Amino acid sequence: MSEQVLQYLKTNRAYFLKRLFEFLEIPSISTDSNYKKDMEKAADFIVTYLQEIGFGSAEKQPTNNHPLVYGEYNGAGKDAPTVLFYGHYDVQPADPMELWHSNPFQPEIRDGRLYARGASDDKGQVFMHLAVFEAFLKTEGKLPVNVKVCIEGEEEIGSENLYNILQEHQEQFSADFAVISDSGMVAKNQPTILYGLKGFTGLEITVKGPDHDLHSGMYGGAIRNPIMALSHILSSMKNEEEFITVDGFYDDVEPLSSKERKMMAAAPTEDFAKSAGVNQTVSEKGYTPVEHTMGRPTFEVNGIFGGYQGEGTKTIIPSSATAKITCRLVPGQDPEIVQKLLEDHIYKVAPSGVEVHVEKEKLSAKAYKVEPDHPLIKKAAEAYSKAFQAETVYVRMGGSIPVVEWVEAIYGMPIVLLGFGTPEDRLHSPNESFPLDSFDKGMETIVYYWNSVGN
Amino acid sequence: MSEQVLQYLKTNRAYFLKRLFEFLEIPSISTDSNYKKDMEKAADFIVTYLQEIGFGSAEKQPTNNHPLVYGEYNGAGKDAPTVLFYGHYDVQPADPMELWHSNPFQPEIRDGRLYARGASDDKGQVFMHLAVFEAFLKTEGKLPVNVKVCIEGEEEIGSENLYNILQEHQEQFSADFAVISDSGMVAKNQPTILYGLKGFTGLEITVKGPDHDLHSGMYGGAIRNPIMALSHILSSMKNEEEFITVDGFYDDVEPLSSKERKMMAAAPTEDFAKSAGVNQTVSEKGYTPVEHTMGRPTFEVNGIFGGYQGEGTKTIIPSSATAKITCRLVPGQDPEIVQKLLEDHIYKVAPSGVEVHVEKEKLSAKAYKVEPDHPLIKKAAEAYSKAFQAETVYVRMGGSIPVVEWVEAIYGMPIVLLGFGTPEDRLHSPNESFPLDSFDKGMETIVYYWNSVGN
Repeated sequence: MSEQVLQYLKTNRAYFLKRLFEFLEIPSISTDSNYKKDMEKAADFIVTYLQEIGFGSAEKQPTNNHPLVYGEYNGAGKDAPTVLFYGHYDVQPADPMELWHSNPFQPEIRDGRLYARGASDDKGQVFMHLAVFEAFLKTEGKLPVNVKVCIEGEEEIGSENLYNILQEHQEQFSADFAVISDSGMVAKNQPTILYGLKGFTGLEITVKGPDHDLHSGMYGGAIRNPIMALSHILSSMKNEEEFITVDGFYDDVEPLSSKERKMMAAAPTEDFAKSAGVNQTVSEKGYTPVEHTMGRPTFEVNGIFGGYQGEGTKTIIPSSATAKITCRLVPGQDPEIVQKLLEDHIYKVAPSGVEVHVEKEKLSAKAYKVEPDHPLIKKAAEAYSKAFQAETVYVRMGGSIPVVEWVEAIYGMPIVLLGFGTPEDRLHSPNESFPLDSFDKGMETIVYYWNSVGN
Repeated sequence: MSEQVLQYLKTNRAYFLKRLFEFLEIPSISTDSNYKKDMEKAADFIVTYLQEIGFGSAEKQPTNNHPLVYGEYNGAGKDAPTVLFYGHYDVQPADPMELWHSNPFQPEIRDGRLYARGASDDKGQVFMHLAVFEAFLKTEGKLPVNVKVCIEGEEEIGSENLYNILQEHQEQFSADFAVISDSGMVAKNQPTILYGLKGFTGLEITVKGPDHDLHSGMYGGAIRNPIMALSHILSSMKNEEEFITVDGFYDDVEPLSSKERKMMAAAPTEDFAKSAGVNQTVSEKGYTPVEHTMGRPTFEVNGIFGGYQGEGTKTIIPSSATAKITCRLVPGQDPEIVQKLLEDHIYKVAPSGVEVHVEKEKLSAKAYKVEPDHPLIKKAAEAYSKAFQAETVYVRMGGSIPVVEWVEAIYGMPIVLLGFGTPEDRLHSPNESFPLDSFDKGMETIVYYWNSVGN
């Protein structure tokens, strides 16, 4: 019964790519207020599309910042389940622009991949759902499921407004389960059930030393160097065996079961070293890189700065140094507790002669995990396998999607992560892309899935 | 016999300050090619001044970059000694401009201090010598000493051209001894004999990780973080007791004698914590801050950068991190050997999974030390004490003046550091200033000194 829907997608492929290009051409960068109009334009694109294909109620709902696109379809009837479909239309900034091989907002197809900012994260994946809705409605006249569409414009900046809206309008968003396509597969054309995501927390350390940069000859030997103090603090937090040396950090970590370690080992994961361009991987002692990225917490310094950064030499003791830190958390860990442990550690090890300030990241999230053998997950695995003609693997991933934790915490509904990205997509980096294979087989997967869960 | 010379300086004080203001108004920033014309203008100012007062041969001598001002006075006669007087007319850049309370190139007197870039380092001190030359020549018709004036325009960028000129034109610059006024006193109005300076070396460490910034969720746990790797390297080089933990670093250090430690303890040095705006000082275990700054080698990280440095959070593993390091060296240490020890240490401790590159600073210098009881030093101490009406103290200082080492190495002549700066001068920082007390009493010191060494 999916035949004519799939045929419609095939017949109109050129048209769908054209519309997707239109969508990707809009620089919907949520973090930069210069793009406020483009954010509206991207939201309007989705509203118009939804209305054209039969979501008559689709509209932009204002928030304190960028609008939320919301629309309902109730034509599947009372016996059919209702799904909350979530995605986001905002993208990360494209800079550094000079590293792109083509304009990030002029999509280009090269070697079977579509290059554009947002091609994979998440405009490309959102659009696949729009196309599948259209294909069902234009051929069979109806969808197999009732749908609540929720496409936000603030995922890349923390989804703060969505969090409030989800809490305040629980009736509007309640559903039997949720489907989110904002993730990926472990390898191109390798159907992947993502049954866990990491949580997230962070903080910024600023070490203040002298009230102005000092001449290193006149003060060197009497005044603590803030960069050196910061280096001592940072190096006390993770050792060279990639073990996080902060008291209590691992206390609540849910251990990896041998069943999970087997599933992780079975997944044909990417060659991390090759795709990162390094000569070897590293990982926590006792765990493989795959186990560490999927199922063990991480600690990363995302940025550092202090003192003279220009060419050549400036012989100063700088007045301050700052480091930005984020952690990815696993089930069991509470972001606020972890944040407090990190903060306590920093103040405890801070050397004398400098002032240390910790600024805690406000947005954080717990990890998410669903049982791999939940019926809705099993059906997703079957749809994947049928479309991609391959056995589906089960993995957890190191990324965080805060909305997943919130939907689970507020609504208690099961969440199916139906992602089609690949490890080569370069999310958040120059030359983001999405394979056309994922575009075609992904839409096929979605068609099978709606049919399967609708019946 | 100094009376009429001193009277001339007093009578014409307003005129001298006016001419000094003219000199300071020229933004002679040697490091920035936008100021090339101003560099010529500053050199012209000195040449004109010297010619007006009686140094008929004064001229700009071209170099590969900024001109050297050279002039001779031989009117003291064959029996009088010849002194090589060195100073520099170039200044450090003034940025960050927003931290200045008055325009760095519009000198202003506030609370007995003259505020301007170069007021202390070194245009203010150079000008005092010009004024004293004028006072002698306009009153007594002659100077007590023969003089070779050498005022360069590249001190703040390493004096590379001067180094070549000093080697190639040894006859031109040979003299009985040298006088340099490019340093300071341990406290305002505290006459200070500076009998030692530190040497200098440096290098830059770059840690290269992934070939692009990575998503910390997808790669965290598999890829070494370059900032963390750099922190481990840096923290392995100096411990929290301010001891440099690089094998062999202290091997050739000439120990501080108990006589020197007594002299250092006797010097009324500045309140380091107060002038740096920190709550406490630090120093190498076993040494006081004064001993460490004056007589023990130091290791400073002057700058660090890597990854995301904007507002908020960016969850990446950055592709690289860089730190700039300089060391101040003491007598006995060879800059090239020390540089090699640092480099070897860095490569030895570099963690796996990243590439570490060391770029060695090309310009370096050995430390300088003269015997505190050399007759020319004793006479300087007497001149200081007479002018400032206070006992002269003997110290070494943490700064480096490469030309001092070169003059000693090439010419073997004694060097007298006749400095009048104070610890509050904020050299190289916003709001550089120079006390008018130093201006008046400093000129008086110079008058006594020329009379003393000339007879």
